[in-house]
Amino acid sequence: MKRAKRYLVAVSALLVLLVGGGVALGRALNTDDELMEDTTPKTMDVILSEIRSLMQDYSIEAYIVPSVDAHNSEYISLHDRRYQYVTNFTGSAGTAIITLTGAALWTDSRYHLQAENEIDPSYWTLMREGLAGVPTRDQWLLEHLSPGAQVGTDPFLIASTEYERLGTVLAQSGYRLIALERNLVDIVWNNRPPQTVEELRPLGYEYTGQRAADKISTVRDTLHALGANAIVINALDEVAWLLNLRGTDILYNPVFFAYAIITHERVHLFTNTERINETIREHFRTEGLMPPVVDVRDYQDILAGIDEYVRDGHRLLLSTACSQALYAAIPAEQRLQQYSVVAKLKAVKNAVEAAGMQRAHVRDGAAVVRYLAWLETTVGGDDNVTELSGAAQLHAFRSEQQLFVDLSFTAISAFGPNSAIVHYSPSTDTDLPITRDGIYLIDSGAQYLDGTTDVTRTIALGQPTAFQRECFTRVLKGFLSLASAVFPTHASGTVFDTLARKALWDVGLDYGHGTGHGIGAFLGVHEYPPSFVSNTASPSNQGVVENMFSSNEPGYYEAGQFGIRIEDIVQVVRADVPHDFNGRGALTFYSNTVVPIQRKLIDVQLLSEAEVTSLNKYHRRVREQVGPLLLEQNDSEAYRWLIEATEEINTPTADSLAPVHQNGTM
Amino acid sequence: MKRAKRYLVAVSALLVLLVGGGVALGRALNTDDELMEDTTPKTMDVILSEIRSLMQDYSIEAYIVPSVDAHNSEYISLHDRRYQYVTNFTGSAGTAIITLTGAALWTDSRYHLQAENEIDPSYWTLMREGLAGVPTRDQWLLEHLSPGAQVGTDPFLIASTEYERLGTVLAQSGYRLIALERNLVDIVWNNRPPQTVEELRPLGYEYTGQRAADKISTVRDTLHALGANAIVINALDEVAWLLNLRGTDILYNPVFFAYAIITHERVHLFTNTERINETIREHFRTEGLMPPVVDVRDYQDILAGIDEYVRDGHRLLLSTACSQALYAAIPAEQRLQQYSVVAKLKAVKNAVEAAGMQRAHVRDGAAVVRYLAWLETTVGGDDNVTELSGAAQLHAFRSEQQLFVDLSFTAISAFGPNSAIVHYSPSTDTDLPITRDGIYLIDSGAQYLDGTTDVTRTIALGQPTAFQRECFTRVLKGFLSLASAVFPTHASGTVFDTLARKALWDVGLDYGHGTGHGIGAFLGVHEYPPSFVSNTASPSNQGVVENMFSSNEPGYYEAGQFGIRIEDIVQVVRADVPHDFNGRGALTFYSNTVVPIQRKLIDVQLLSEAEVTSLNKYHRRVREQVGPLLLEQNDSEAYRWLIEATEEINTPTADSLAPVHQNGTM
Repeated sequence: MKRAKRYLVAVSALLVLLVGGGVALGRALNTDDELMEDTTPKTMDVILSEIRSLMQDYSIEAYIVPSVDAHNSEYISLHDRRYQYVTNFTGSAGTAIITLTGAALWTDSRYHLQAENEIDPSYWTLMREGLAGVPTRDQWLLEHLSPGAQVGTDPFLIASTEYERLGTVLAQSGYRLIALERNLVDIVWNNRPPQTVEELRPLGYEYTGQRAADKISTVRDTLHALGANAIVINALDEVAWLLNLRGTDILYNPVFFAYAIITHERVHLFTNTERINETIREHFRTEGLMPPVVDVRDYQDILAGIDEYVRDGHRLLLSTACSQALYAAIPAEQRLQQYSVVAKLKAVKNAVEAAGMQRAHVRDGAAVVRYLAWLETTVGGDDNVTELSGAAQLHAFRSEQQLFVDLSFTAISAFGPNSAIVHYSPSTDTDLPITRDGIYLIDSGAQYLDGTTDVTRTIALGQPTAFQRECFTRVLKGFLSLASAVFPTHASGTVFDTLARKALWDVGLDYGHGTGHGIGAFLGVHEYPPSFVSNTASPSNQGVVENMFSSNEPGYYEAGQFGIRIEDIVQVVRADVPHDFNGRGALTFYSNTVVPIQRKLIDVQLLSEAEVTSLNKYHRRVREQVGPLLLEQNDSEAYRWLIEATEEINTPTADSLAPVHQNGTM
Repeated sequence: MKRAKRYLVAVSALLVLLVGGGVALGRALNTDDELMEDTTPKTMDVILSEIRSLMQDYSIEAYIVPSVDAHNSEYISLHDRRYQYVTNFTGSAGTAIITLTGAALWTDSRYHLQAENEIDPSYWTLMREGLAGVPTRDQWLLEHLSPGAQVGTDPFLIASTEYERLGTVLAQSGYRLIALERNLVDIVWNNRPPQTVEELRPLGYEYTGQRAADKISTVRDTLHALGANAIVINALDEVAWLLNLRGTDILYNPVFFAYAIITHERVHLFTNTERINETIREHFRTEGLMPPVVDVRDYQDILAGIDEYVRDGHRLLLSTACSQALYAAIPAEQRLQQYSVVAKLKAVKNAVEAAGMQRAHVRDGAAVVRYLAWLETTVGGDDNVTELSGAAQLHAFRSEQQLFVDLSFTAISAFGPNSAIVHYSPSTDTDLPITRDGIYLIDSGAQYLDGTTDVTRTIALGQPTAFQRECFTRVLKGFLSLASAVFPTHASGTVFDTLARKALWDVGLDYGHGTGHGIGAFLGVHEYPPSFVSNTASPSNQGVVENMFSSNEPGYYEAGQFGIRIEDIVQVVRADVPHDFNGRGALTFYSNTVVPIQRKLIDVQLLSEAEVTSLNKYHRRVREQVGPLLLEQNDSEAYRWLIEATEEINTPTADSLAPVHQNGTM
């Protein structure tokens, strides 16, 4: 403990207090090597005492420890799991707030049980978000501060928009939100996992379809149009896409920690410089980025890099998703902030990327088909199959596929009541055996060099109930309605969300999640735009254009009973229609995913002739595209399963047609 | 001219220049009686010279004359047609900008021809909005101002949001937008029509269903919830609705010029005090507003009235649609601005209003049926029927109906190529004969004491082409899809817009207007919310709830050839469905409009069985509701026409079903 005390005194003397809006230069990330010598784990008591001591030095009464990193990443590296270090909670989303006398952790319903098990209630109060009577973070802060108190944040770990919002809320009650130069958890965290230093992977033209120099040239066109001199790129997948590089710093997302500043003349890359070896330098040359165009600098120099351009009077463009640290580094009159222009470029795949996505989905389809066939023969046999062991088997089938790199997320392998939990993923605590008595939902995906996949199928290995079949069929009707929609260029995602829900709404049903999310090409499984959601205010919910890719994933969930979701990745393509209103172009979708939809769960009486035709056409294509791969992979059992699973469904005759539900009282 | 000169000097001495954000008190509207003595019409030369002389006194280089009134009304009284006085242009929408050396009028494509005919090009440049190369008002201003110039506006005639926007645009180029206390046109306008002074009409409980005191009590609940002390109401229909009074100050809209300030204790009504006679005072008492609750003050005292509350430190609530004059009268820290809370209350009709709307639509249906029957027998006969004479005949049939007050807008009576012009209304210049060789579109409505109507039917009196029938049937499919939709409470209008367009999108067709607008109960034919549009950012496009009323009006327009629109007024009602997701309630629509849809224009092969059933059910109801009225009105010819027009359509047999258009490449 003595060492820690001395350390605190030494650091306190160096502390620079940043008032909101100030500029922090030379932020050090993990460079206090001399202070890292004692890596003996600290007790919760010590951790919180040390943080509170630092809080007093900073004159703050509350300190916010969010579960995000400096790049607004979806998955958080171990190095950035500060909230986990201070709370012991290992879930993926939560916010901790430490005051001088208390501490509280907010997490959503996915994690209520897990957080209860993991946190020590003598130090932490669990705030179960979504339950009645649970205060929001804002409310709790306002109740626990003394007059005129200050609240501290790490400006790298809070979005500029949220900093502004929270700052206003606090100011209205006479409090003050301030940005601290150092992260207090980092100071205390003596056994912090280092950032990964694995080599970067150059991605060739055969996968990217566009040289980095050409991507950067397009970005510069946008800068020119906006009257900006430079763009600061904070999202990891945007840096990776722009430079045609991939990494392994974050689970499931093939990215690496970096910032970039693109000007009309230079490309400044801020990352671990050790990884920019001769291979990467050669890659830059191949990509048209000749020395001295690319300037590689240390990750921690980003604010200094911005400041050089600020001091030269340049106008800098930022994304609306950037951190407060980057935002505050640029004076308002030199700052432009917009929905990320790089995200919008990245969202529209080029021909090479689109072809890669299609090929990756066919191989991925082969893996999923082999898994579904394997389940059919294995479940109910001598070997016990569980949610976890099933997911492992699917992983194994995927890793046999060419160009496989990794999974794209933890599989939602969910049986029976677990399938009704939208964001479920199995753990040893919850792992259920998969049997012939219930619904099984498998939502999974992988990273291949040529594309990212995400597919959900729902099956009954035994006999489904009539209600399960009705729900499945209504989900399928929405899924087919979206997939076959013809729509004008720049339609909003709400259009597709409406089509996907209509058949459920017809009988008063619905689902509580979005209908579709964009997806990267060997990048994040969730990327935006596009976004197919009912929230008309979402900025990602706008302007669908050709060669965007999205998931199409309506569902239905009967709590405690069963869950249904059908999910394909669809590509926006030109529609072949007889007219062209205002010359704006008609679009439709092409489903990249090729995995049979279980016929046993379909109530054909609820389908229209057009829907049956559409489904039969799809199954014919699944058979044609996936069949040969199964034979190549010598899985004749899976091949036989595929042939049966893709057999034509008979159109219901007009006589047998159940009367279509008549709604409305027109 | 001498008189005018003297007048100008006198007024100039009194001028108070208001800098943006300042507060103007005691604004005088039309009180300079002594200056009105010479009403000899001035020449355009004199009008512009005098305005320019005033502009120099004010040190402004440009003066904006918009086509709006101080209440953001849809229709503008003659008293407020300042743009018409300065330009001679009589169309309903346009903006004039006068500089020291030039003048330009912006108007949209509806009025390009009319404006060309009406304005004198030696004084005015016509800016044809929507045509390529035509500068926007912003662009034109920026090009015509000298460095540091000031632009003048009447703060009563510009929305606070637009004032802010334009002010920012001008400021970015070093110019300055300023608000002038006096309207320069009013000073010059020596023969200005007076405001109308007809008596007000108290509307009884049998039509309103809620006493004014109860409406005001609900508004006060909202004020309380928002922490506001008072609300300033600027929209005329909101004042009329709140006080259960109607007027005739504006064509088609039964409203009267007034503002209101509602506090927790008082109701301040700012209007022409002469019209608040004993009848109206008795009405206030009947409505639960006992003296001294209601304080009636002169219309021109609104800013003084606001100022009293401002000086007392109260917080005042404004609508986002309020004028800059009201906005600037309240300091930022005492001002709350929201989408109008009164508009949101008014949008949800109570049971009495809803029943009145239904009854009004049945009577209106009888008038329209009589007209359509009359057209069938008259067109092609000895008497020439034209767009104008047809509309007059329809007006006559309407005025025979009980509780009829007036039309609700100028009928769009449009034949052949004219029907392809969305906002067409016939004039003597454009009036076409209605013949058996072309499509006739009639979009019309009326004001009844118990409700407002708006209906469109499209008919072919001869033989329609196959393409016309396909287009009509696709419009009908969208119309039926919206009408029969089941949807969750609080769905956005984009949901309905999508459903209405889908059948057109399927073949690459569409229409260039919104799908639905809210409608008043004996108030404006257009009121918001709701709004069924694709624009997801529209604040009226949110939160549909039970007993809102909207139009349902998809269309298709083939320029120069024909136009199709089918429009009903639909009421949001509870849906009878087996499930209730999250207990939020399922809703659907009830069509209030009861007028047959012409079967001759329907290609039954394109309809599903459900669509045919739905249409037959509707026609059965039309026959049942309208038939008895026709017999009462002794129009047996119209009755026979109705019986035939509402005969059942046969369901296409399964064999004869054309293959449904297969879209998508899934």
